[in-house]
Amino acid sequence: MRIARHIKKLVGYVPGEQPKSREVVKLNTNENPYPPSPKCAAVLSSFNLDNLRRYPDPNCSALAKAIAEANGTTPDRVFIGNGSDEILALAARVFVENDESIGSLDPSYSLYKTLAAIRDVKWVGVPSPSLSLPPSCSLFLWTNPNAPTGEFAEPKAIATFAKRFRGVVIVDEAYADFACGNCMSLAAASRNRNVIVMRTFSKSYSLAGLRVGYCVGPKDLIAALYKAKDSYNVDAVAQAVALVAFRDCAYHGKTVAKVVKTRKAFSQSLVKRGWDVIPSESNFVFAKPPAKAKAKDVFAYLKGRDIFVRYFPGRLTGDRLRITIGTDGQMETLLAALDDRFRGEEKTRKTNKTKPRKQPPGK
Amino acid sequence: MRIARHIKKLVGYVPGEQPKSREVVKLNTNENPYPPSPKCAAVLSSFNLDNLRRYPDPNCSALAKAIAEANGTTPDRVFIGNGSDEILALAARVFVENDESIGSLDPSYSLYKTLAAIRDVKWVGVPSPSLSLPPSCSLFLWTNPNAPTGEFAEPKAIATFAKRFRGVVIVDEAYADFACGNCMSLAAASRNRNVIVMRTFSKSYSLAGLRVGYCVGPKDLIAALYKAKDSYNVDAVAQAVALVAFRDCAYHGKTVAKVVKTRKAFSQSLVKRGWDVIPSESNFVFAKPPAKAKAKDVFAYLKGRDIFVRYFPGRLTGDRLRITIGTDGQMETLLAALDDRFRGEEKTRKTNKTKPRKQPPGK
Repeated sequence: MRIARHIKKLVGYVPGEQPKSREVVKLNTNENPYPPSPKCAAVLSSFNLDNLRRYPDPNCSALAKAIAEANGTTPDRVFIGNGSDEILALAARVFVENDESIGSLDPSYSLYKTLAAIRDVKWVGVPSPSLSLPPSCSLFLWTNPNAPTGEFAEPKAIATFAKRFRGVVIVDEAYADFACGNCMSLAAASRNRNVIVMRTFSKSYSLAGLRVGYCVGPKDLIAALYKAKDSYNVDAVAQAVALVAFRDCAYHGKTVAKVVKTRKAFSQSLVKRGWDVIPSESNFVFAKPPAKAKAKDVFAYLKGRDIFVRYFPGRLTGDRLRITIGTDGQMETLLAALDDRFRGEEKTRKTNKTKPRKQPPGK
Repeated sequence: MRIARHIKKLVGYVPGEQPKSREVVKLNTNENPYPPSPKCAAVLSSFNLDNLRRYPDPNCSALAKAIAEANGTTPDRVFIGNGSDEILALAARVFVENDESIGSLDPSYSLYKTLAAIRDVKWVGVPSPSLSLPPSCSLFLWTNPNAPTGEFAEPKAIATFAKRFRGVVIVDEAYADFACGNCMSLAAASRNRNVIVMRTFSKSYSLAGLRVGYCVGPKDLIAALYKAKDSYNVDAVAQAVALVAFRDCAYHGKTVAKVVKTRKAFSQSLVKRGWDVIPSESNFVFAKPPAKAKAKDVFAYLKGRDIFVRYFPGRLTGDRLRITIGTDGQMETLLAALDDRFRGEEKTRKTNKTKPRKQPPGK
């Protein structure tokens, strides 16, 4: 046996397509349409090459300190990872025994299920964590706002769940900067025993290419992540660039506000066109095409027009498309393409029109 | 139980000290004393910031292609990791079942033992892999040249061992560029079933700060690593810089030749001073101080003079120091400090002199 049995039978996670051409309208992997803080360019161009000779700071001290200060806590409650993907993979090993299981919302980030399979433990998906989880569940991954739905859960509901949950709750707040609230103060509180809040530089900071994520939580849990990580998990360039991006709050705030504004306008445009749009607190919307149009067909049609959105087959997700919020121009291109596609069906839609959902409140 | 039992009892790997001051003579973590290829600076300064918005190529295609071509093989036999540390951690999960074990030379890279503990499996250390390993051993990590000894094993011996070993053999060739041979052609051969050769950009390419390692091996084993890795494990900047460094063969060859030349001269200087030096094929030497001097004391003395070398306590390693090969100037500073230290003992040494070892052949 050269390859472990559970890896042999594993179907790896398939990330969203990264088309080679830069000409496409890319709204499929929730990247930010705006570039990172211009201050990042200065870090790159003035980076002392000789610093690359040496191993990077294994604890990302400067970045951890900045994150701790911004959240009113101490660096020993902060862990920096090679993207939040690394934090998730570590958590699956550190907080889960071989005979335990990992829980998450369903639908949610489809990587969670793959993570459990890589870890060779059971995955349990629940529509809402208020439903009873099996006693074996020792790690619950609560994406908030959730993906692909964009729905936001109140921090109070998460706190209530965590209080009665015996294991570790990781609140994956990849999209929290686009939302009306978050669980950071819950995670940073000294009375917190089992809640870890995870953030990423990939979305609101426009640094998906660099792989930096972080989490804040109880000291003992953070220390356990440190013990299991690779010695030097985040490279020196990524540490330096992320720090500058993190400190440029003004730029960050402006970018986020633009995305939220576009999300609101785009959601309304879809609703006007007969789509069912789940109120979103993130940088994407999860929407159902009007009338009899199949999400899968609309996905293929858009791809044919060099517009990439995301389609997740399956009972819970297969009737919708997840559309990342791009620039206003990109959303107009998408809407124009949809108008071309649905022109023929307009009459049908007008008579079969369903009541549109309430609009998202948003930030 | 919030933290897995095996992590709770785990003592994490302690990497060599990274002193904050740049004034020290740092010969403790086998970094290259020369900067990376100057072409890397151009990549950093001209990096299109907008590319950081998007996720990096999950398969490091351009780098994998270049590495494959240079080694006469195909990209599906190449895996790129976030440092070779990541490859090792993945291998421990992909090639080892819960009831199996990981083997390595002893002494060797001390991380291996920690890796087995993180993976919650047994670690077996052997002075030579010709000795029988327990049947549970499914992954053997053979560092060649070995660390901390610097000793080189003939590729033929490794091939012979691999042929009769039921599991996967990873030849950790972090230092192979400084050696007189390597196992790359063995790993790249299409008849190879279980040998993976691993390299790093941290040593000979002077890019420890960036975290890029790679390995070459049989397609099915490489595919298994891909299945278990994080989606985007190597960032876009690291991919681009490593590619340029890899292609600058002339600069790489020159740097390596300088280090090898210094290693030879420094080894001789130590032997002349009564040290026992194991013939090294790497960018460090593992040497025993003369007469009654204790390695631990010499280590502390040097640290007091702002010269950092590495001391590994323990029965097999505690009587020696591992000294990274720096610039000629750094080695002279070290030798001058040693001369100060041993001046008083000179007379004793002259009478108790042991026969010096044969000098390393070296490249």
